Amino acid sequence: MNLNSEIVGFVAGTLTTLCWTPQAIKILRSHDAQSISLITQVAFVIGCSFWLLYGVLIGSASIIVFNTVTVALNLLIIVLKLRCDADEKDRFHQNPISDPVD
Amino acid sequence: MNLNSEIVGFVAGTLTTLCWTPQAIKILRSHDAQSISLITQVAFVIGCSFWLLYGVLIGSASIIVFNTVTVALNLLIIVLKLRCDADEKDRFHQNPISDPVD
Repeated sequence: MNLNSEIVGFVAGTLTTLCWTPQAIKILRSHDAQSISLITQVAFVIGCSFWLLYGVLIGSASIIVFNTVTVALNLLIIVLKLRCDADEKDRFHQNPISDPVD
Repeated sequence: MNLNSEIVGFVAGTLTTLCWTPQAIKILRSHDAQSISLITQVAFVIGCSFWLLYGVLIGSASIIVFNTVTVALNLLIIVLKLRCDADEKDRFHQNPISDPVD
């Protein structure tokens, strides 16, 4: 591993870690997460937890840090999604568009 | 690197690669991708392209394969999102909910 690959790995890790912030902000602002796949998010969090374990096993601090932040941000996205979907369900039951009688 | 870390890395890579399939299927089925952040998706694709380059630089076949598939699936998600968002915009201009006069 030389300096070039170190820099490329650092840029890659920073981008694939911090990129989840705009997604969390978008859900917080719009209160909508319906088109986000829960299966994808859960599988991604489990996968990144395995990357975290991999970082521990090979003793790589950067893999541990990147994946800890990625897991945290994606757990936040899952919590926000579940909350928004539940709110949306409540709103639908209180005032379903398909039944505009009231 | 021993057999344990190899297995953990393989599980991690498989999960964080294939997890994007349910997201693509969900968009195809619902024709909705409004709550997905375009900034997140684009930054993630650029980040995974750097991981791909990293794989080439350190000569890791598994990093190259995982990230090629991840980039391809997430480019598909971006294309689907742009198409669905454009269709949604067209529908809104043809029949805006905020203007139910007709």
